[in-house]
Amino acid sequence: MARGALVLGVGAKSGLGGALCERFAREGLETFAAGRTKAKVDMARAFETVEKVTGAPPELVVYNAGNMAAGPLTTMTDAFFEDAWRVCAFGAFLCGREAARRMAPAGSGTLIFTGATSSLRSRPPFIAFAAAKAAERAVAHGLAREFGPKGLHVAHVIVDGVIDGELVNSRMPQIKQSLGADGMLDIAALADAYWMLHSQQRSAWTLELDLRPYKETF
Amino acid sequence: MARGALVLGVGAKSGLGGALCERFAREGLETFAAGRTKAKVDMARAFETVEKVTGAPPELVVYNAGNMAAGPLTTMTDAFFEDAWRVCAFGAFLCGREAARRMAPAGSGTLIFTGATSSLRSRPPFIAFAAAKAAERAVAHGLAREFGPKGLHVAHVIVDGVIDGELVNSRMPQIKQSLGADGMLDIAALADAYWMLHSQQRSAWTLELDLRPYKETF
Amino acid sequence: MARGALVLGVGAKSGLGGALCERFAREGLETFAAGRTKAKVDMARAFETVEKVTGAPPELVVYNAGNMAAGPLTTMTDAFFEDAWRVCAFGAFLCGREAARRMAPAGSGTLIFTGATSSLRSRPPFIAFAAAKAAERAVAHGLAREFGPKGLHVAHVIVDGVIDGELVNSRMPQIKQSLGADGMLDIAALADAYWMLHSQQRSAWTLELDLRPYKETF
Amino acid sequence: MARGALVLGVGAKSGLGGALCERFAREGLETFAAGRTKAKVDMARAFETVEKVTGAPPELVVYNAGNMAAGPLTTMTDAFFEDAWRVCAFGAFLCGREAARRMAPAGSGTLIFTGATSSLRSRPPFIAFAAAKAAERAVAHGLAREFGPKGLHVAHVIVDGVIDGELVNSRMPQIKQSLGADGMLDIAALADAYWMLHSQQRSAWTLELDLRPYKETF
Repeated sequence: MARGALVLGVGAKSGLGGALCERFAREGLETFAAGRTKAKVDMARAFETVEKVTGAPPELVVYNAGNMAAGPLTTMTDAFFEDAWRVCAFGAFLCGREAARRMAPAGSGTLIFTGATSSLRSRPPFIAFAAAKAAERAVAHGLAREFGPKGLHVAHVIVDGVIDGELVNSRMPQIKQSLGADGMLDIAALADAYWMLHSQQRSAWTLELDLRPYKETF
Repeated sequence: MARGALVLGVGAKSGLGGALCERFAREGLETFAAGRTKAKVDMARAFETVEKVTGAPPELVVYNAGNMAAGPLTTMTDAFFEDAWRVCAFGAFLCGREAARRMAPAGSGTLIFTGATSSLRSRPPFIAFAAAKAAERAVAHGLAREFGPKGLHVAHVIVDGVIDGELVNSRMPQIKQSLGADGMLDIAALADAYWMLHSQQRSAWTLELDLRPYKETF
Repeated sequence: MARGALVLGVGAKSGLGGALCERFAREGLETFAAGRTKAKVDMARAFETVEKVTGAPPELVVYNAGNMAAGPLTTMTDAFFEDAWRVCAFGAFLCGREAARRMAPAGSGTLIFTGATSSLRSRPPFIAFAAAKAAERAVAHGLAREFGPKGLHVAHVIVDGVIDGELVNSRMPQIKQSLGADGMLDIAALADAYWMLHSQQRSAWTLELDLRPYKETF
Repeated sequence: MARGALVLGVGAKSGLGGALCERFAREGLETFAAGRTKAKVDMARAFETVEKVTGAPPELVVYNAGNMAAGPLTTMTDAFFEDAWRVCAFGAFLCGREAARRMAPAGSGTLIFTGATSSLRSRPPFIAFAAAKAAERAVAHGLAREFGPKGLHVAHVIVDGVIDGELVNSRMPQIKQSLGADGMLDIAALADAYWMLHSQQRSAWTLELDLRPYKETF
């Protein structure tokens, strides 16, 4: 029976989601990827696909959605605010509920949520994003308290800095030049950290892990 | 020209919302109340009503919605999770945006959000509520950072304890007996604190105020 | 029998300590002031003086010591680091223990500690100060948890900004000019906040109060 | 030239300090241990010893002191409160300053502080310990902000739970029985986490790592 991993919120091939898939596969997990799944049916299907192919629920799931939604508040539309929530928080809930239903009964497994600086601090122009990420973090913490004692490792990663390789926008080459070679978060190093969380034995689990480049101010 | 106040999320007459209305009216503000307004149109109308009657935007607005949504995660419906968010977080956004549009240009005014213990800590069976309140808090903090320097006082009150007078459920009489006379939050004392926030001069504003009965463990 | 107040850590007459004394006296309390009291004997004597004159322990005590100790770490002396701790944290402990012994048995009274931005965040060149203020905050929070349920109101005020009237240094006039009239914390407004904390009824107490000028970034 | 590690605050052989020494040695570092060093001279000597033997400053230093000082506040002696500070906070300062002087100029290296639940939350009967650990955490965070950008990785580990193998007291066998096989923190798992922190590349550093057994409530 194969051991499965599921990475949700995989965007551009060059991003963190892709690097996680590659890393988990290299570790011998049958790895499945899905884009942002904001709907109930998609989430169940994603977990079911893993189960069908591997014969068991995934042992490692990462909810990696985010959109860095930014904009001035006074002209922000309802849809913009709601969409940030739907991607980060509602999706996290759907993923967490599915993991609680399918993974927790087995008494083992890892569920990791990708957070951001905004998960902890709400600053303009990122109010919608911060509200969504704060909600996602609450989902992660609540899940950890409820399902940790049942053997499901829930972790929340605070990604604090610019991720190298993610095409945030066209200014990236300039940003990279100004920050220097390791002034941005290396996606392979991020993937190492996620894998480390999955590798922790349950006698010493981490709930919240912050990751930032050495030059990053905070 | 009258000075106006607007209290949103007024539920049972005996609750905090009602006490706030009474208190603001006693202080001489023309006070308007509205229930939970989760829709764009309702929120604009609520602010407009104040403007029509008093000739100016409200000088004090309280967003006081909450539902203490509780339940086990594995059987929680999508609608349940979304509704908690819509009441606490989306409504807070709508209210904040309206205040930003109408009150901030005047360079003064107060906007207060009612938070809860769950705003800071996500614990089962309150995951949906905690996710919604964490998002609401992020809205409040982001607004404070963006509009505080423009003269709009944004505050977030952490109500930590059982509010006396709010008919939470039928077990209240027993709870009251076990906690004792001032082991619950007195709504008049809460109203004092909200009024105090509005009375602060802008040289020394409070962003976050926690209020709990002296016996409350935390 | 007179009601007494005790303000510890009163420095320059123009500072917060002086303003607190003035305000408490105006409210009818027999008010006593003392400088930084880092020694056991001084602290006991300060409380005893109040008791001798008024016939009872003080009903309101403020521990208001701080030195904003700043300097580069590599050349910081042992004495410098220790002195910051002795002023802020050890003095707070002495004050708290004295209050616990003398005020808590009466089942009422207020004990307020003056904190700072550095109480929550440690940034160079304020590492020694931040370490001292973080320790002081822990003293305040521990006292609140232990003696709050016994009727002693313990509060911690986060003073976040430059206090107008405190002669921080010779650059103050320029700072004042750049921040504007109410870009600094008004000491009368601060004194209002301390008095408000003392006035709270025990059904709705505040543990931590942040105060900052509307223009302050945070 | 050998690569050196220094572990400060090594207590019982069976404790975390001993396990760290063993682990670092196994990874090929020439590892040195010292007990709690509360004095300036001891700290300098400890670092110098490493330099003399290996020809370079240590590349990895752990400040691992703590005493879980517990007691009722009203009868707590000055010496008791001060000693907790001296062990946890003053020692951390001495260690951090020495690392800043000797390791930071090389532009690399890792400095890890062992924190505790009390680093974040002050609860009786641990007020003295909490004040000391909060100060130590402020030292760690301040160092991270000052010396991280210079290439020194500063991290703070929140050890949240009972460490298996540390002889806290005679009730340990009963505690162990009630918590179960992995209801306590395994020291080898803790040592893994410290080594992982040292292994992180500087493009993605962790400042604060929490570690707790899966059954631990928090």
